Amino acid sequence: MKRQHISDAVIRRLPRYYRYLDELHAKGVVRISSNSLGKRMGITASQIRQDLSCFGEFGQQGYGYNITALRAEVGHILGVDEKHRLIVVGAGHLGHALLQNFDFVSSGFRLDTAFDVSPALIGSTINGVLIRGINELEDYCAAVHPAVAVLTVPKAVAQETAARLISLGVRGIWNFTNMELTVESGIFVEDVHFADSLLTLSYRISAAPQLEKESS
Amino acid sequence: MKRQHISDAVIRRLPRYYRYLDELHAKGVVRISSNSLGKRMGITASQIRQDLSCFGEFGQQGYGYNITALRAEVGHILGVDEKHRLIVVGAGHLGHALLQNFDFVSSGFRLDTAFDVSPALIGSTINGVLIRGINELEDYCAAVHPAVAVLTVPKAVAQETAARLISLGVRGIWNFTNMELTVESGIFVEDVHFADSLLTLSYRISAAPQLEKESS
Repeated sequence: MKRQHISDAVIRRLPRYYRYLDELHAKGVVRISSNSLGKRMGITASQIRQDLSCFGEFGQQGYGYNITALRAEVGHILGVDEKHRLIVVGAGHLGHALLQNFDFVSSGFRLDTAFDVSPALIGSTINGVLIRGINELEDYCAAVHPAVAVLTVPKAVAQETAARLISLGVRGIWNFTNMELTVESGIFVEDVHFADSLLTLSYRISAAPQLEKESS
Repeated sequence: MKRQHISDAVIRRLPRYYRYLDELHAKGVVRISSNSLGKRMGITASQIRQDLSCFGEFGQQGYGYNITALRAEVGHILGVDEKHRLIVVGAGHLGHALLQNFDFVSSGFRLDTAFDVSPALIGSTINGVLIRGINELEDYCAAVHPAVAVLTVPKAVAQETAARLISLGVRGIWNFTNMELTVESGIFVEDVHFADSLLTLSYRISAAPQLEKESS
């Protein structure tokens, strides 16, 4: 398949496509039109057709998209079938919550182990995942070569921990530390910004009564 | 100020504008051109000018944007100065992590209290915030009228807890439960989808070596 340059905006939308297609697939829906998919996702049908055309031809005029095929292909594009190895660094409350509740497997990752500095946690398991001491990180990475690290350490040690992970061959960091990390090119950082989402909610509840007042 | 219909895509970008402007403001930067801001944010200068023009005129030709003024205005649009009251419902690991680390104040919310069912937690404080028993919810809401609830309860009780909160006057739900909530119109739910962010990272580390191979 010929892969063209894909814009950042399209890449950002792909996980949402995957999520919606995955839900439809789980419900046993067989096909969907770009119109119906657009309505569910709150984007236009033409946007959908344009986005998905970057990756080849999935839809058929008058039939719509075959959900099983499209889900598999979007998943493939996202690398869900690559089973990248992943570690969690920091098993405090946030790390614990992710280990307990987040489905790493259905996002295409293999979660091996977690690391922490706390003697109270080292050697215990959360949801079947062993917590190792952070001093085991070097040996572990040399043996297993994890591609991605979930960074859930305190802000104060975020940058040094990221640098250490990168020096050990980690290529992607899922960053929950609220610190802007400085990394070399070829390393990918995906920041989780809780505030962006809460501010969107703030906007909606602030704007709602105001719009009512304005239209009255 | 006349407020026009604002598209969902613009609303989604506003918190990012606010975050970047807030960082620049904290660093003492006084003004910035749409070009420089665009480069930092990874969007085009014309997109920025178009987005911000929805809310009035902020930029000056040849001068750029005054960061203090623009940050204040974007914050105002987002409702950051409204100090909506917020409660956290569910003080397990994720709720605990948010109570401990998330800066609700700088997102414009007043965090009063949290609720949980666990006798071990009720009566304790996290970061100065009191955890109350969930059976106090009705009396508390009747007295204090919180506008927003952070929903960090187990998936199995997500929908019923949301319905209970809405019946008590809560208008916005920041939903961490990974459940699609059904709510009446006029109620706003902002879902936090961790997987979307991780899948973006999966795409990047999967695509990187592939693109190298293709270009070689």
